[in-house]
Amino acid sequence: MAVSQTNSGVEFLSAAGIDLLLELRGPGLRAALTDALRVAVRTGRLVPGARLPASRTLAGDLGIARSTVTESYAELVAEGWLTAQQGSGTRVADRPDPRTAVPSPARRPGPRRPPAQGLVPGAAQFAEFPRTMWVTAARRALTAAPHDAFGYGDPLGRMELRSALAEYLARVRGVDATPERIVISSGFHHGLGLLARALRTQGVRAMAVESYGLDLYRDLLIGVGLETPALRVDADGARTGDLSGLPGVGAVLLTPAHQFPTGVALSPERRAAALDWAHRTGGLVVEDDYDGEFRYDRQPIGALQGRDPARVAYFGTASKSLAPALRLAWMVLPEEWVPKVAAAKGPVDGVSVLDQLTLAELITSGDFDRHVRAIRQRYRRRRGQLVAALAERAPGVRVTGMAAGLQAVVELPAGTEARIVRRAARHGLLVGGLNEFRHEVPADGPDRRERDALVVNYSAVSDSAWPGALDTLCRIMPDGGAARAELKGEL
Amino acid sequence: MAVSQTNSGVEFLSAAGIDLLLELRGPGLRAALTDALRVAVRTGRLVPGARLPASRTLAGDLGIARSTVTESYAELVAEGWLTAQQGSGTRVADRPDPRTAVPSPARRPGPRRPPAQGLVPGAAQFAEFPRTMWVTAARRALTAAPHDAFGYGDPLGRMELRSALAEYLARVRGVDATPERIVISSGFHHGLGLLARALRTQGVRAMAVESYGLDLYRDLLIGVGLETPALRVDADGARTGDLSGLPGVGAVLLTPAHQFPTGVALSPERRAAALDWAHRTGGLVVEDDYDGEFRYDRQPIGALQGRDPARVAYFGTASKSLAPALRLAWMVLPEEWVPKVAAAKGPVDGVSVLDQLTLAELITSGDFDRHVRAIRQRYRRRRGQLVAALAERAPGVRVTGMAAGLQAVVELPAGTEARIVRRAARHGLLVGGLNEFRHEVPADGPDRRERDALVVNYSAVSDSAWPGALDTLCRIMPDGGAARAELKGEL
Repeated sequence: MAVSQTNSGVEFLSAAGIDLLLELRGPGLRAALTDALRVAVRTGRLVPGARLPASRTLAGDLGIARSTVTESYAELVAEGWLTAQQGSGTRVADRPDPRTAVPSPARRPGPRRPPAQGLVPGAAQFAEFPRTMWVTAARRALTAAPHDAFGYGDPLGRMELRSALAEYLARVRGVDATPERIVISSGFHHGLGLLARALRTQGVRAMAVESYGLDLYRDLLIGVGLETPALRVDADGARTGDLSGLPGVGAVLLTPAHQFPTGVALSPERRAAALDWAHRTGGLVVEDDYDGEFRYDRQPIGALQGRDPARVAYFGTASKSLAPALRLAWMVLPEEWVPKVAAAKGPVDGVSVLDQLTLAELITSGDFDRHVRAIRQRYRRRRGQLVAALAERAPGVRVTGMAAGLQAVVELPAGTEARIVRRAARHGLLVGGLNEFRHEVPADGPDRRERDALVVNYSAVSDSAWPGALDTLCRIMPDGGAARAELKGEL
Repeated sequence: MAVSQTNSGVEFLSAAGIDLLLELRGPGLRAALTDALRVAVRTGRLVPGARLPASRTLAGDLGIARSTVTESYAELVAEGWLTAQQGSGTRVADRPDPRTAVPSPARRPGPRRPPAQGLVPGAAQFAEFPRTMWVTAARRALTAAPHDAFGYGDPLGRMELRSALAEYLARVRGVDATPERIVISSGFHHGLGLLARALRTQGVRAMAVESYGLDLYRDLLIGVGLETPALRVDADGARTGDLSGLPGVGAVLLTPAHQFPTGVALSPERRAAALDWAHRTGGLVVEDDYDGEFRYDRQPIGALQGRDPARVAYFGTASKSLAPALRLAWMVLPEEWVPKVAAAKGPVDGVSVLDQLTLAELITSGDFDRHVRAIRQRYRRRRGQLVAALAERAPGVRVTGMAAGLQAVVELPAGTEARIVRRAARHGLLVGGLNEFRHEVPADGPDRRERDALVVNYSAVSDSAWPGALDTLCRIMPDGGAARAELKGEL
């Protein structure tokens, strides 16, 4: 995100498409920042869904403490002006809801606007949560559950779910799993935090990350006290060969099956290089298999963990296959790490036992497999429609990445990403710019852009909203209708 | 817990009734401690349900680092030898379960023993979870839920539940609540940790606690970096007047409606003293209303929070009224603390949205009220049966504390507590000794015992197990059948 000082304050020219004039004044910096952001939302200068800069970035650009920015964001989230959600960073709330806003004369939300269509990464297909299937399984699970299932539960997770997952992950993802090495967490963010704290306790100083990924996770690692040097990502995935050149790194966070968000697979050579590094240095490979069930052109690549269970910690989640609302994820750990992660998790578990029992029932009954197959068909169809529509209506762009997962990368002409994200927002369409997900590689300068692209999550809207969203997406492309209209000055 | 050195190692004479000879040898202290505990469980020297000393206590007694003890406990919990659960501390697993034990030649559990009947505090009436009521409400809630309900959710909790709780807590507990000041957590332990971190961030150094309570919570506060001086508890509750004498205390954790575990109510004078202290010093009163719905002789005392919502943070939980398995609790905060706790909670919530929506549906439909009334009747009846049976069969003891909550305090002749807890364990009955819950008051020495008593949780067993448990309880009393048998040397 580039920032230019002006005489009246600080102007953001954000990769997220935010044009925001912030005038920092008043008693405290934090209060001034909070008020300025609040006003910007109320007056519509920050449109619903607009993504705010990462706290680290904004703090750097404004030359203020990062804590000032995070506290300001947290306050506005608590008031309902912003939302901070896994996968989509901190954004302006789609529709500021008076009920969620701390009532205060200065804080009344502005006029309502039509809800934006979201194709932003991280948002799952909430509209299609299998409500009936879930409740039916919940009834079966609760009826069969022993009395003690309603107690505080095993801090590592219910054995029913860990046993079901061990069988499922081995069958579907080639994971080498035993129930005793599986730990249930309330989402990937929670699980990654537990492992990061355990690594820190063991003296690990740094966890390498991929040069494209979510600030949310990198910030989590930094918050735990880990350094997070970035490995450059190219067409073969993360350059794991560079790990040897990074001193003091004890772990590496990878998305081998489907790099997020660039959509490439980690090549066999890079997979081998990661495992070689782990063996040579005693390091740990952290495999985030966030969408491993969704490959459309052929059988998915098996989990890296299956190659070397002693050196890889495997992470999976129910957020993509079912819904984030479940707050259910799992990790398969090397045996030595189980007690260490258990110690980080503490004596009291926070994961709903009822939901754990229900998911276990879904998996063992086969309903989960049937559900995943069904939505895989849906997403494959949508990806096909996206590729076809863009090929016909926006020949100037190119869809890259594997035929897999929930999002596609649409390559754009150099220098057009920020303008097109802004144009989309003006048309009520929320899309992510690839550079929103870019971590700086030490060698880079802050303004070095490797490529311009959109990250389009085609799973994030309902069937009824999809055609309209796709049409809008085509229109806002460099050679789409909206672009021509803009050139004619009609917008 | 008193400890005496012997030439062969360290002998515990535990208030929890554990006689354990630990011989610390081998390479590392931690490994030696872990092995010794494992052997003690396998050989039966530590009986199922036996409560282990708090890590702080044991570390002090052995003169080793506390982390050594906590890591050893965590490893044994992960292996299934011990359980660490809210409300009952770290205990020997009732029945070491091969499925939960990390398989290893040295770690195979010992011979099975008959399952013990548990009357230990903290265990709720799991056997009576309203399964059908819950699933029916879940179906209604999921059918009515908007699409966005299946997303990552509001970090503060679903507004449906916060709105329902605001109405319910005002009506039932006299809490001054608005949805905007309610934060949902995955249990009281989670919520207290969030507030403790927020207090720490604000520069608070110490939170006073009551001289009787759960190590689990005190340890949590210590882990966050807070000092935890103890206020002596007497027949009028905690001596809140002593707060002025405790330097640097910025908050106090109280159980005003029903002191845990002694069962007394905080007197009006002591309530006023707590609020006066808060006003004078700007301190925060943390009200743990863990069983406020359960008063049997008259209307429950209203929440302290209702008297001064700006100075009291109110905590409630579904663990007693429904089940700990839900991992659902709530706090009603002064407005200024909402963003601070939100910042501590972070951008990603870990509480199941589906369970939140289901509980909201239960409350708004009135089913929750009906359910609470029903189990209140059950617990009232059980308490009456307990008091009557002891009066008839063990006239030497006296039940104290209010007619409220889920446990009763049975006063014992001085010096008999540990022996009777042990005797109960030999008869397969798990009961807690009052001194297991005692925090030292600065003035005290470690061996000063104010009183001997049992803490009997009469809600913790099913209807079918209750009569047998009650009979055993009467028999192990000082003048019960088991005692006479012991004197005759028959045991």
